[in-house]
Amino acid sequence: MKKIDGGICAVQGVSANGIKEGKTGLVVILAEGPAAGVFTRNKVTAAPVLLTRQRIETENHLSAVIVNSGNANAFTGDDGYLDAMGMASMLAGKLDLDPELVAVASTGVIGRRLDLGLIEKQLPEVLGAMGSSPGCSQAAAKAIMTTDKVPKEAAVELDCGVRIGAIAKGSGMIEPNMGTMLCFVYTDAKVPADVLDAALRKAVEKSFNMVVVDGDTSTNDMVLFTATCKSGIKPCLECLDEFEEGLLYVLTELAKKMAKDGEGATKLVEARVTGAKEYEDARLAAKAIVRSPLVKTAIFGKDPNWGRVVAAAGYSGAELEQDKLSLSFIGGGEEVELVKAGDISGFADLGLLKKIMAAEEIVITLDLGMGEESATAWGCDLTYDYVRINAEYTT
Amino acid sequence: MKKIDGGICAVQGVSANGIKEGKTGLVVILAEGPAAGVFTRNKVTAAPVLLTRQRIETENHLSAVIVNSGNANAFTGDDGYLDAMGMASMLAGKLDLDPELVAVASTGVIGRRLDLGLIEKQLPEVLGAMGSSPGCSQAAAKAIMTTDKVPKEAAVELDCGVRIGAIAKGSGMIEPNMGTMLCFVYTDAKVPADVLDAALRKAVEKSFNMVVVDGDTSTNDMVLFTATCKSGIKPCLECLDEFEEGLLYVLTELAKKMAKDGEGATKLVEARVTGAKEYEDARLAAKAIVRSPLVKTAIFGKDPNWGRVVAAAGYSGAELEQDKLSLSFIGGGEEVELVKAGDISGFADLGLLKKIMAAEEIVITLDLGMGEESATAWGCDLTYDYVRINAEYTT
Repeated sequence: MKKIDGGICAVQGVSANGIKEGKTGLVVILAEGPAAGVFTRNKVTAAPVLLTRQRIETENHLSAVIVNSGNANAFTGDDGYLDAMGMASMLAGKLDLDPELVAVASTGVIGRRLDLGLIEKQLPEVLGAMGSSPGCSQAAAKAIMTTDKVPKEAAVELDCGVRIGAIAKGSGMIEPNMGTMLCFVYTDAKVPADVLDAALRKAVEKSFNMVVVDGDTSTNDMVLFTATCKSGIKPCLECLDEFEEGLLYVLTELAKKMAKDGEGATKLVEARVTGAKEYEDARLAAKAIVRSPLVKTAIFGKDPNWGRVVAAAGYSGAELEQDKLSLSFIGGGEEVELVKAGDISGFADLGLLKKIMAAEEIVITLDLGMGEESATAWGCDLTYDYVRINAEYTT
Repeated sequence: MKKIDGGICAVQGVSANGIKEGKTGLVVILAEGPAAGVFTRNKVTAAPVLLTRQRIETENHLSAVIVNSGNANAFTGDDGYLDAMGMASMLAGKLDLDPELVAVASTGVIGRRLDLGLIEKQLPEVLGAMGSSPGCSQAAAKAIMTTDKVPKEAAVELDCGVRIGAIAKGSGMIEPNMGTMLCFVYTDAKVPADVLDAALRKAVEKSFNMVVVDGDTSTNDMVLFTATCKSGIKPCLECLDEFEEGLLYVLTELAKKMAKDGEGATKLVEARVTGAKEYEDARLAAKAIVRSPLVKTAIFGKDPNWGRVVAAAGYSGAELEQDKLSLSFIGGGEEVELVKAGDISGFADLGLLKKIMAAEEIVITLDLGMGEESATAWGCDLTYDYVRINAEYTT
């Protein structure tokens, strides 16, 4: 498996384009084949999520995705649902596609009607420059951005020749009234929808679902996975493992980019919890550490504040015993062990700790000393800018 | 039932005193009788919690409490446990009490040995001025403060003459490495420990357990409830309801004071969720609203950002349907309905909203429109000062 450029356009059979005018962007991705999706669990569910989830469940197949940024089309009732259908039909009409095979995604302000007129105006320009160059994937990745500071793309080529590429947006619940992480994943492998679905759920669990920026879950989150089958390669059983590895790699890359691009973030925080009795214990502890506002502010303050880390693990619901905990901080290529099997006497070289805490990427490793299971979660620090971004605004 | 002054010293049979020298305080409360306790659920549990929980469980009776602030005696292993026993024995020795009937509580830095020498030095001064005046309750309430900005006391007299009084400290996980909410509750009612225990658990569930400052749970949290029985009044069945109401009132008063005194807080936020099918749904939604960093920053920014409120309720796990939700903001004596049964068309008078959002206490009422159950949670806004307090420090 090797990392490659080109994002979604690295995958055979995918063409894309996107434009952004001020805060409103429009993206179209054409790629026909079996498809699967994972959607927000928020009970306040945006219209495009309701529509696309329903279509994926009935058809297990997609021919295109149309995405707008600037308006989430959420909490907009039946009108909003009709608007989402209208978006899909507009694209289907122009390209003579079956509207049932067109997915819709939106990100932006909650509680405002979509401006279909604007989308109708932007659509010809987007369709006019569709293509399969790396630049087209870039254009799409940029057009779905809201307050993201960087476009997010990743792609790999597996040893068997299969390619997997994706673009994503999101840095937590972004902008006042605004949220959402969107990810569109493509492969040219020849795989049926049920295999895509199983692989996607597994990979999302260990990538996007392990990212915490502020713990808020958006009304619009959506990850779509389509197989163009264009490589003609049907992963054998061994390849299937590599296929899942490749997918996990791509989604994890994007997950880390989201965490690092978290609102106001200055640092990427990775919590690696090992030695858990059950995977669930490791997962709970890792997520509690990257979610804790006290850990996040300590990281921002460059403070090796390990008391907050063990406290977070302690209330996470994970099974643990404090006298079995071992804790290390890693950063800038250095590592310091702060707690060893509950013993804090080795409280460490402060100079080295300072150097570690100054790094842009901080890794916290917590060994529960109770078993073999492990999990990793990603987050960012909590800064003045997070408060500014989310407070200095009036609806 | 009427509110009265005097805190814990309003209750017959309670004498107290406390001193604070810099960041280290010492408090002694003498009150003999049946006792119950509620303790942190954090699996990283401080030594005084382990000791006091054990003593309450075996004896169901207390004669005194000794509390230090400045050091949590948490994550200190067996030495820490012996230090906690030492604190209790020191007090027991001076007053010829059974050490098994002395409770110990601590709040402060995690992971540092307790300075028993300092406590031994401070103890005579504390014992020298024990008393039952309102000033003595105040002194105790002040000496357990850490970064609390105000001492926290509350007391009521029930129609039957029984009194309930309490002091508390806490504003979330306070100070770097520091956390804890402590509350010491007393009544002169003649009630056995099992009644105290049942009443306390019920009241804590609806008061302290409904407060969120930053969602972090301390290693040292402790609420103790002792009945001096000095009034000689044994609550009859009807009085028992009033007794529980009175207790809930006292603890709720203190809970709100904690939320309002939350780190860096400028506003008290109250989330009232009504119309839930089950109480658990109301509880989940109310806590999710006051916990949401996006709601908290919006309140700080005086932004009537209702989209974040419904989104928080949506991911809370509570059973709800978006087209049944009704939402209002209340502040400064004004109320504005933003959503009515899922309909947002009534989007309201912005001038009035601005006035509401400028108030010091913001009430968010969310009606799920699905049943009769309700719950209320309290929190505060998320401000630059919260970040400053928790980041600008080096361990």
